[in-house]
Amino acid sequence: MAGTDRQRENLTGGPAIILVEPQLGENIGMVARAMANFGLSNLRIVNPRDGWPNDKAVSAAAHADHVIDGVVVFETLEAALADLNLVYATTARPRDGHKPVRGPVEAGAILRGRENTGEKTGILFGRERIGLRNWEVGLADEIVTFPVNPAYASLNIAQAVLLMSYEWMKSGLSSSHETAFDKPEVEPAPKADLHGLFAQIEQGLDARGYFRSETKRMKAVDNLRAVLTRPGFSTDEINVLRGLFASFDRFDPQGKRQPARSGKSGPRAGATGVSEGDGHE
Amino acid sequence: MAGTDRQRENLTGGPAIILVEPQLGENIGMVARAMANFGLSNLRIVNPRDGWPNDKAVSAAAHADHVIDGVVVFETLEAALADLNLVYATTARPRDGHKPVRGPVEAGAILRGRENTGEKTGILFGRERIGLRNWEVGLADEIVTFPVNPAYASLNIAQAVLLMSYEWMKSGLSSSHETAFDKPEVEPAPKADLHGLFAQIEQGLDARGYFRSETKRMKAVDNLRAVLTRPGFSTDEINVLRGLFASFDRFDPQGKRQPARSGKSGPRAGATGVSEGDGHE
Repeated sequence: MAGTDRQRENLTGGPAIILVEPQLGENIGMVARAMANFGLSNLRIVNPRDGWPNDKAVSAAAHADHVIDGVVVFETLEAALADLNLVYATTARPRDGHKPVRGPVEAGAILRGRENTGEKTGILFGRERIGLRNWEVGLADEIVTFPVNPAYASLNIAQAVLLMSYEWMKSGLSSSHETAFDKPEVEPAPKADLHGLFAQIEQGLDARGYFRSETKRMKAVDNLRAVLTRPGFSTDEINVLRGLFASFDRFDPQGKRQPARSGKSGPRAGATGVSEGDGHE
Repeated sequence: MAGTDRQRENLTGGPAIILVEPQLGENIGMVARAMANFGLSNLRIVNPRDGWPNDKAVSAAAHADHVIDGVVVFETLEAALADLNLVYATTARPRDGHKPVRGPVEAGAILRGRENTGEKTGILFGRERIGLRNWEVGLADEIVTFPVNPAYASLNIAQAVLLMSYEWMKSGLSSSHETAFDKPEVEPAPKADLHGLFAQIEQGLDARGYFRSETKRMKAVDNLRAVLTRPGFSTDEINVLRGLFASFDRFDPQGKRQPARSGKSGPRAGATGVSEGDGHE
């Protein structure tokens, strides 16, 4: 959603993504892009149908050049797995072989743990149409499967790679609530500023006879103050609101200036010298 | 990775996915597919560049027909949001406005909670090239952002929708370790079966003078038994192994039958009447 920024840290490494006999270059490119998005860079391809290098892969990779340039092609799956200590197979359906079956979160955490101890790991993804053959799944240690809609379980290989890459990235965060940027700090204003706003509004309402009786006034004022307190407005925000109310206070809807009001009239737009006591009356 | 199965439960509902001025029909189709994968079905489009319906969207949707058929097109973002109680905006960069910023896991959990109490929720996704404008983000309650590689932060809209749809699905699981299918149950064999395997192998090794001394024998046997115990073999698996060792025991590599061995020779292939004591010798 934002542009690529080559100045920023480029995360690389992590589990190898191993595509078994992928057919479409576009898919290989989208896989590379998904890997780059989430900090993976080791892409291995077993017998790509259309050979390698592949122009369509390059264009679909949308400048994930470091992944595309690092692709290693293998003639056999065994060769692609030879140096790996732990291998996952992705599959949407149960297989024989009594392998542990993990969800993506758990698999991400296991992969992170094993990589952290210096092991080499990989994740196998099958062909577009038929996925992995049973004997290929048999070469893996464990299975990872996605929690999909039972009626619509068909995941494109680039989507499947994206989800595992994303879970890899997440497994390295200190918490799943960690985000790349935070809500900008809003410092709630000192209460005096808020009380000044209360005073201004309440005086304006009093001047208009808004409160029918003192009893009703107390209740309505409590309510109003609660509404204005909850957001934790900053001083800047309160000044914006004071300007708004001052503007409403000064002119009638036809744009004519209201006549000066008696004793209770409040601060005008831009008034800043509101004493701490204003809101307590 | 597996075919669509229309007989199985089709998960629908959940937060509305709202695409703001998407340009490419292919992307809209891939969004529909990603939604269907993870049980979302409410797709709203604000001012699609190429109009609606869109043939390219239909073909890229890969039979996610229930999502495509349910698309509602709006002329303004305000109209698209009018009936929603809680709206997230997806964005890769900080914005003004002091909105809470969530990761996808947390946002998925919040959305699930609000939908469970009967509120209507939605998630906003921006245009392919420039994402959401600031005023559009301003109409949302909270921001969700993805933990991406800082050097390669550009997520395709279909990928972004996939991740949020996936987190929506996950937020409904009883645990992130829940999987659509489980490891087939392997019942570890009664220990007698395992001990029978020990006996067979150790007798075969004894017959070949494999153990140089009784001291070395004890250590090697302990080691061997540890290796054979850890997997928790089932009775069927143990029978496969016993057949293997029996076969090795009976023939030399050239296929000639070995001469009969003295007193210590163990069970032959297919032997099943192994007493519980066999492994304890």
